[in-house]
Amino acid sequence: MAEGRSYLDSLLNLESLRKSLVRQEDTIIFSLIERAKYPINSTLYDDDKPPAHLSDSLFHFLLKESEALQAKAGRYTSPEENAFFPDKLPSPLLPPPDHTPVLHPPGAAININDKVLNLYLKTLLPLIAADGDDRNYAATAASDLNCLQALSRRIHFGKFVAEVKFRDAPEDYTPAIRAKDREALMKLLTFESVEETIKKRVEKKAMVFGQDVDLNENDSNGDYKVDPTIVSKLYGEWVIPLTKSVQVEYLLRRLD
Amino acid sequence: MAEGRSYLDSLLNLESLRKSLVRQEDTIIFSLIERAKYPINSTLYDDDKPPAHLSDSLFHFLLKESEALQAKAGRYTSPEENAFFPDKLPSPLLPPPDHTPVLHPPGAAININDKVLNLYLKTLLPLIAADGDDRNYAATAASDLNCLQALSRRIHFGKFVAEVKFRDAPEDYTPAIRAKDREALMKLLTFESVEETIKKRVEKKAMVFGQDVDLNENDSNGDYKVDPTIVSKLYGEWVIPLTKSVQVEYLLRRLD
Repeated sequence: MAEGRSYLDSLLNLESLRKSLVRQEDTIIFSLIERAKYPINSTLYDDDKPPAHLSDSLFHFLLKESEALQAKAGRYTSPEENAFFPDKLPSPLLPPPDHTPVLHPPGAAININDKVLNLYLKTLLPLIAADGDDRNYAATAASDLNCLQALSRRIHFGKFVAEVKFRDAPEDYTPAIRAKDREALMKLLTFESVEETIKKRVEKKAMVFGQDVDLNENDSNGDYKVDPTIVSKLYGEWVIPLTKSVQVEYLLRRLD
Repeated sequence: MAEGRSYLDSLLNLESLRKSLVRQEDTIIFSLIERAKYPINSTLYDDDKPPAHLSDSLFHFLLKESEALQAKAGRYTSPEENAFFPDKLPSPLLPPPDHTPVLHPPGAAININDKVLNLYLKTLLPLIAADGDDRNYAATAASDLNCLQALSRRIHFGKFVAEVKFRDAPEDYTPAIRAKDREALMKLLTFESVEETIKKRVEKKAMVFGQDVDLNENDSNGDYKVDPTIVSKLYGEWVIPLTKSVQVEYLLRRLD
């Protein structure tokens, strides 16, 4: 299938990966702006007092059930997608696409969504959502799901980036992989000026997308729906380091 | 509950309703931009060749099941939300909020989501999504759901607008309501200059949110992720008229 082929090619081409990562920034920022419409709504996440008939929080239930439903639609047959609750997902209703695997199988299985979920709930959410409870739990959880899936996809894209870099220059990575030298691999994967550019760009995007647009010329009065410095911090302290950590773990398994 | 009270007040105050409608424009445009990432993916909507074990299209199944899940989280206890498949929705897992109804009950039940769904699938989708099939059906359907729920909420907000306008000046509307004069009511609810402002503003928002933002000064090269004129047309031809039609139907039941 020609579309299948070009799709796979796009996952093994550094320039398409870069474009996709830049486009994913918009998705992540839109999702954060949308989540920030609702207050923190702590009841939703309360594991200690789950609703009747549930053993975990309402959020845990909704996330798990949403993933089960999306699994039926084939979401996790895509190598770009990683579930937060990958155990016992139902089978897809349509036959899965007959893709040649693009990733080296031991690395393809990497899933750090427990870290992504923990970071999101414990650290990010209190930074972007106001205090309070408006009882809009369904809409809040749906927008959480959008944020989590967008962040997870971005961070696990490290697998494709690592695969392409390895294919382009296996000799650069092989010694550090054989020596299981995480630090050396991290050094090979770190380009500070690129990271600075990303942080500045996402900050700018948060300003552009989070402003109140009206028909007068001067829109931006410094009031944004999500604080742009938080978005820059999100990338600098979590998204970029976690993506690199996925890359390192992937490379460590690349010769298995 | 103080939050409940202020929430209800906000639904009966023309200025808060206006602010919410303006904010909902951002949500609608973000959701359209996100849907436009995927090609049309017609297989998803194909009622003639549903996947095994399903009687309708995969999309129909996902929309229905997503609503059932969100119903458990209490989505449809909010007067702002209207289901696309309101029959046989499961009960919420948490006790519903003890709100005094803000809407007049015969009008509160108005639901024109069959029109919204038809408009979205038949008219809007072909305008914003490119041809093709990338098999990302789960992600595509999830972004369809975001678009549909955002459009539905916006259009059914007409109920609150109508309620507030009626409370502010019942004498203006009562003769036309008693005469069941739809045309007269539509005239009372039409403010062309306001509608023009909305159409211009959403077009501008589509330019701002749909541009490729980079760190150079001049971003906008006229290339937008969703054509801004389509967003203006969406509002002018469908969103505004359907909102007014909800208002008219609501007012016609206001004295029942």
